[in-house]
Amino acid sequence: MKKINIIVGQSGGPTAVINSSLYGVIKEAFESDEIANVYGMVHGIEGFMNGEYINLRNFFDEKDKLELLRRTPAAFLGSCRYKLPEDITDISYKRVFEAFEKLEIGAFFYIGGNDSMDTVSKLQKAAELYKSEVRFIGVPKTVDNDLVNTDHTPGYGSAAKYIASTVRDVIFDAGVYRNPVVTIIEIMGRHAGWLTAASALAGGKYSPNPMLIYLPEVAFDMDNFIKDLKVALSKNNSVVVCVSEGIIDADGKLICEYEGDSAVDGFGHKMLAGCGKVLERKVKAELNIKCRSIELNLPQRCSSVLASLTDIEEAAGVGKSAVKAALRGESGKMVCMERDDSYGYKVNYVTKDVSEICNFEKKFPAEWINSTQNGIKKEFIDYVLPLIQGENKTSFKNGLPEYIRLENM
Amino acid sequence: MKKINIIVGQSGGPTAVINSSLYGVIKEAFESDEIANVYGMVHGIEGFMNGEYINLRNFFDEKDKLELLRRTPAAFLGSCRYKLPEDITDISYKRVFEAFEKLEIGAFFYIGGNDSMDTVSKLQKAAELYKSEVRFIGVPKTVDNDLVNTDHTPGYGSAAKYIASTVRDVIFDAGVYRNPVVTIIEIMGRHAGWLTAASALAGGKYSPNPMLIYLPEVAFDMDNFIKDLKVALSKNNSVVVCVSEGIIDADGKLICEYEGDSAVDGFGHKMLAGCGKVLERKVKAELNIKCRSIELNLPQRCSSVLASLTDIEEAAGVGKSAVKAALRGESGKMVCMERDDSYGYKVNYVTKDVSEICNFEKKFPAEWINSTQNGIKKEFIDYVLPLIQGENKTSFKNGLPEYIRLENM
Repeated sequence: MKKINIIVGQSGGPTAVINSSLYGVIKEAFESDEIANVYGMVHGIEGFMNGEYINLRNFFDEKDKLELLRRTPAAFLGSCRYKLPEDITDISYKRVFEAFEKLEIGAFFYIGGNDSMDTVSKLQKAAELYKSEVRFIGVPKTVDNDLVNTDHTPGYGSAAKYIASTVRDVIFDAGVYRNPVVTIIEIMGRHAGWLTAASALAGGKYSPNPMLIYLPEVAFDMDNFIKDLKVALSKNNSVVVCVSEGIIDADGKLICEYEGDSAVDGFGHKMLAGCGKVLERKVKAELNIKCRSIELNLPQRCSSVLASLTDIEEAAGVGKSAVKAALRGESGKMVCMERDDSYGYKVNYVTKDVSEICNFEKKFPAEWINSTQNGIKKEFIDYVLPLIQGENKTSFKNGLPEYIRLENM
Repeated sequence: MKKINIIVGQSGGPTAVINSSLYGVIKEAFESDEIANVYGMVHGIEGFMNGEYINLRNFFDEKDKLELLRRTPAAFLGSCRYKLPEDITDISYKRVFEAFEKLEIGAFFYIGGNDSMDTVSKLQKAAELYKSEVRFIGVPKTVDNDLVNTDHTPGYGSAAKYIASTVRDVIFDAGVYRNPVVTIIEIMGRHAGWLTAASALAGGKYSPNPMLIYLPEVAFDMDNFIKDLKVALSKNNSVVVCVSEGIIDADGKLICEYEGDSAVDGFGHKMLAGCGKVLERKVKAELNIKCRSIELNLPQRCSSVLASLTDIEEAAGVGKSAVKAALRGESGKMVCMERDDSYGYKVNYVTKDVSEICNFEKKFPAEWINSTQNGIKKEFIDYVLPLIQGENKTSFKNGLPEYIRLENM
């Protein structure tokens, strides 16, 4: 049997475990006797189209390096936000498939979120047109947890753990004074409230906080917010409010757009920031009490120290399963996770058509939001708790986390 | 010999290790046969003046609880930002000393920063007036590292470790794309650059970033900043800039005040926020490239997971030394740390007059700033590295850090 070459890339925003998925692909490929060369696209499909790729066998020549990769945050191979043309007869596709042919690529793995799955889906369609035998497999990754047809997405558990732990620290910090104080924590999530909902884990037995949680799935009403706050302040001096960056009002207007304009990224997504600041100013004006807003910002998606071990292992699992699927001859698929609660928490890795996944969004379920639309029900806690279990065994050197980086190898 | 009662309080902004100092005081007191009751002021001197205190022997009846206290962030006893009147003949002093008499207090310990040392100093002066025999000892705490007469301050090492580690994660995250990007990280520090300087640890062997670091000790010049940025961008696609919240221009104007006004806290300190946003908008306008600003905000001072073990141990050390000093009959003193590098890193705990410490500020040394005023010299790295060594052995329960809280005990 002739061995095949494979190529893997990373795309979209980094997470704490996207490199663990890369580890999974590489590890499974290195261990397979059906695979010869393992290439890495540098800066995703965009870099590959510019001839940027490396031979990963040359890089990961020691076992220690692969272990370090597994625990290093951000995208080791570099990333891109590049949208392939809608028209699959476009010249770019021809070039990509010529490059595949030149490198004798048999399978292509793309680790990413919604937009990256769109790339896999388009390449699959183009492969049919070009009668290419390259197999295309998507490896899911997104802190947003908004991919459909999978119980959850690698990257989410670590971000959820970071958010819950950091919000807990902030609850402790914000609760030290006697005077009333409102602390607003703005959490990632343009359209889906999964990340913000994870803040519900923070208080637990320690605190009624966060007393108010607002997701983008619920129309945000400024008057109701102030009413909610008054009620909360009548019960506790320190009120912590967690909000998704993408909360919108009943007219579909973003709260962060109540002041000034927003920018737009390469995919036409609005680049949100600042609904926390808008709410902070509103609270100060309406209630005349101390109020501070905090954006958790990038660290929530790239913190290695608070990565979830479950997430790290599952991220590697989807990577390994992707290689197995390609070797079975599958293509145009994404690896999905099915939860099996028969004997405690367990996930099974299955594959589903990537065309039925890309460009859809999984919203936070309405039935997990409380009746007053400002909090999260226990059903979600049951869902999310298994995903944040276990700690990353970060290796510290001279007081700081030790990582691996392409430029240094 | 008659046993004395003691009382301890926490004041000012929380840190990751202020509870470790409280642990030190309690532990040393519990082990001393010269001490009877150990009281805790709830919400510092302000709460005490309102009759809020607890008997700590009743609370810490198990060894496990004290261990948990040592690793719990924020102020277990609650805190305050309360300034005693300048006039020590004011009625408030009379009330405080009457309360001391009623509780038969022999020694008073106050864990805090500059303003808290001001409280210790005033109480010492009032004690002389009222012929009180209560001994007053200050226990230093501040993430800002701006107390004079001590090599460094408990709280600083943990914040420095958090900042260095988090900036490292952000450097990795911000470096994944091919397109030029500027990431501005705003770090705490109103007047002193100690915290921002710690970001210099982040890149190390991995990255030239942070390529630019600006402290409040250097007059900030917007034109030079843009020039510095252009030079940095000519060398690296991803440029990470670390700035203190309190950077000011040559006229003494805060950069964050370039847009709008700032609020003022109870001590008349300006409540800063937003120089990162000001710079972000400037960069976008001048260079027309992707730019994002991040405020590290509260987590930098209250993260338990990234607390430094050295800092935790030293924080306990100053607490224990404070009790010993009081038992030796000292008063009006603060416990200071003297560094002894004769055989590797070591600190000695000594006491110095609190009146010579409060209301002074230790600036970041000019000789540790590079000649282009936008970076940090190796001398500082040698100074700070020992302070971030060792990791907090956070105990995780159900995926999240386990803490102890007054309301739950």
